Amino acid sequence: MGENPLGHTREEDIVAVPDYKDYQPLSIETVAKRLSDYPEIPARLGGKPGDWQVREVGDGNLNFVYIVTGPDGSLCAKQALPYVRLVGESWPLPLSRSFYEHAALVRQDKANGSVPEIYHYDGPQALILMENLSPHVVWRKALINRERHETAARVLGEFTAESLFRTSDLALPAAEKKAEIALFAGNTALCKITEDLVFTDPYFDHPMNSWTSPELDTTVRAVQADPQWKAAIQELKYMFLTRAEAMVHGDLHTGSIMVAKGADGAEDVRVIDPEFAFYGPMGFDCGALIANLLLSYFAQDGYDGRASLYQDWLLEQIEKYCHSFASRFSELWRTERTGDAYSRALYEDQNHHDASEIALTNFLHRVEIDALGFAGAKMTRRIIGLAGVEDLQVIADPAVRAACERRALALARLLVVERGELGSLSKALESAERILRDVK
Amino acid sequence: MGENPLGHTREEDIVAVPDYKDYQPLSIETVAKRLSDYPEIPARLGGKPGDWQVREVGDGNLNFVYIVTGPDGSLCAKQALPYVRLVGESWPLPLSRSFYEHAALVRQDKANGSVPEIYHYDGPQALILMENLSPHVVWRKALINRERHETAARVLGEFTAESLFRTSDLALPAAEKKAEIALFAGNTALCKITEDLVFTDPYFDHPMNSWTSPELDTTVRAVQADPQWKAAIQELKYMFLTRAEAMVHGDLHTGSIMVAKGADGAEDVRVIDPEFAFYGPMGFDCGALIANLLLSYFAQDGYDGRASLYQDWLLEQIEKYCHSFASRFSELWRTERTGDAYSRALYEDQNHHDASEIALTNFLHRVEIDALGFAGAKMTRRIIGLAGVEDLQVIADPAVRAACERRALALARLLVVERGELGSLSKALESAERILRDVK
Repeated sequence: MGENPLGHTREEDIVAVPDYKDYQPLSIETVAKRLSDYPEIPARLGGKPGDWQVREVGDGNLNFVYIVTGPDGSLCAKQALPYVRLVGESWPLPLSRSFYEHAALVRQDKANGSVPEIYHYDGPQALILMENLSPHVVWRKALINRERHETAARVLGEFTAESLFRTSDLALPAAEKKAEIALFAGNTALCKITEDLVFTDPYFDHPMNSWTSPELDTTVRAVQADPQWKAAIQELKYMFLTRAEAMVHGDLHTGSIMVAKGADGAEDVRVIDPEFAFYGPMGFDCGALIANLLLSYFAQDGYDGRASLYQDWLLEQIEKYCHSFASRFSELWRTERTGDAYSRALYEDQNHHDASEIALTNFLHRVEIDALGFAGAKMTRRIIGLAGVEDLQVIADPAVRAACERRALALARLLVVERGELGSLSKALESAERILRDVK
Repeated sequence: MGENPLGHTREEDIVAVPDYKDYQPLSIETVAKRLSDYPEIPARLGGKPGDWQVREVGDGNLNFVYIVTGPDGSLCAKQALPYVRLVGESWPLPLSRSFYEHAALVRQDKANGSVPEIYHYDGPQALILMENLSPHVVWRKALINRERHETAARVLGEFTAESLFRTSDLALPAAEKKAEIALFAGNTALCKITEDLVFTDPYFDHPMNSWTSPELDTTVRAVQADPQWKAAIQELKYMFLTRAEAMVHGDLHTGSIMVAKGADGAEDVRVIDPEFAFYGPMGFDCGALIANLLLSYFAQDGYDGRASLYQDWLLEQIEKYCHSFASRFSELWRTERTGDAYSRALYEDQNHHDASEIALTNFLHRVEIDALGFAGAKMTRRIIGLAGVEDLQVIADPAVRAACERRALALARLLVVERGELGSLSKALESAERILRDVK
């Protein structure tokens, strides 16, 4: 691997994790020089490396991200670091996450397409050169600003349906899918972050937990002493650990989504940052997105101006997202079910179309209930655990923030503990409205 | 790999599937010569290779098995063939199943011990040299002869509990368990046999299906036209494809169990033939064993002499097996829960022992219900699908055999379709008794 440290991509970089022995972290000073050595990149940017402008824009917790702009074009260069950027070298994190991110981006692109275009992948440098999404903004920020991107929910429903269905046993023969499971099986360090921060640490007195204190202290103690909540969360964690249904994005919150609106009103929506990708339960991705829209819903009461119209819009987006997911998933079930699960030999080939539709309904219902549980888990971790969300953090008054958070936690408990009894997303959204109205 | 075709076992043979380019199938003439080249084998057998007696005893469907006996000892040599022995070269099957069998034997030995001792593993020759179990007999044959091995159920309950628990997220950190999943992910050809023969082919008019015809024709048509049965079977197949809970044996029927009774009455029980091993649902192994004991239960009416006492004994063995499984699993839950699932940090470390016990109860209940479903699936495939069982095949009169099979299928439907409503193994066994009495 050492002969070619700037890694003109070769097949073996893509099917196996590189050894990273020639890894060199970029700095704002070295980016232009390094990029000038890659094929086609200079032509894409235009001019000479000395003309290129480099900005570091990584506002995520893990990596360095540079935007490089030349006279003819721009790109985004994302490089993994051997530790968690937010914390520093004391929290090591393997460079291989860049390998998994690239592998996931390739698959999501093939399955759906709403991801950044990849210009070059340098495996040994843990570096992905890709489309600079501009004038896009992070959807989370747009929601905080009460902007309305009307197509996002539909596009994301299709993204989730296509990326999950087409990597699952519904689309792939079992042998092919097991090879994919094996390929992603090494991404354990990133999975462990989720296992700990989402499913474990918030439920006992872990030193990295963080919440609005002292306003929320009593509520947090109650969560941690709630045996039903804890039992249900551990069931969900067990599902996360054992249900290898599809390649999930693994971190599909509103901060992993970029939205843009052109002058003509046409929108563009992209999903980024799939470094948490692994084979897991389908409901995990759906639940992550629902959770983050619900967090925005409860946070809106903490912002200036009248919240209710925007809150209604947010609930509509959740419904629209789930409807888009179910509707696209159903189309794929009917037209692309080429995998070993629910084999057509037993259904369509026998003219048992009704039985196929019943199986589909049951399947989607199960994913919906799983998603509600995961949504509750993701809401809770953002309020009690290590990493909060901007939606709530921008509320300056701790009393106001804590009130929003208490409502979010009331719904989260319902989603986690009573997801089966709730029985549907629409019941969950009715509960959200009731809690917003009634819980002080 | 080519320099050492007789494969003195090296580390790389054990962690990766060999390439088999120097594979040479043994024959009854070449076994002694080949074995004489392995370390320690000549000393174990004693005398000279010319003195060794070689018998081919493979009565399974897949492999060649030789018993080699010398003046001082004996051994069993099991070699995979590149095709299914039962069918011939027209049905190829990868030699790698020997790699997975060895990997599983090593893990089962470590977790529990009730497996044959391995003397030598020659990866590139797909050959395992192991203990010759003598005077053991296949448990299935003992059940057909109405022999009673009183310890088998308890030993097998412990085997299942220990081999499943200790390879699961309850015992292993997630990263270690994912590496194990990746290791077994290549055993897809064997998994596919189960996917097809157990969960798919019996439910439509597949040319390889075989049943007692014409006596059972109407019943088989009814099974294949039953939308609820088909839906429930596909749910179970999806669990088989996606739930990577533990390293399952994958073929734990009464033909994979050897039992012996010494002159002093002391028994010995061993589990053999784990070449179907993979990471799958825990309930699959439990269900396989329950299914085969229930098939014996219903078949007993077709044998000479009064069946009812032995049938009572069989139901007791099923209860004893499940009790032994649950009891050993519970001990391990309390004392060896060192994995990432149901982390002690949330339970015992918080002095929340009651919550841990509730979680255990729920966990075991879920495995029990899964096991009932898989038991029904395994019973059905043995009556309708490609490979029957001797328990039923020895019943010469097709009318008598069909009557036994109809009763078994009546219970199988209940187990598959109504396992949730049934709610427990004891209810399932009550149903078995009722069906035996009432269904003609």
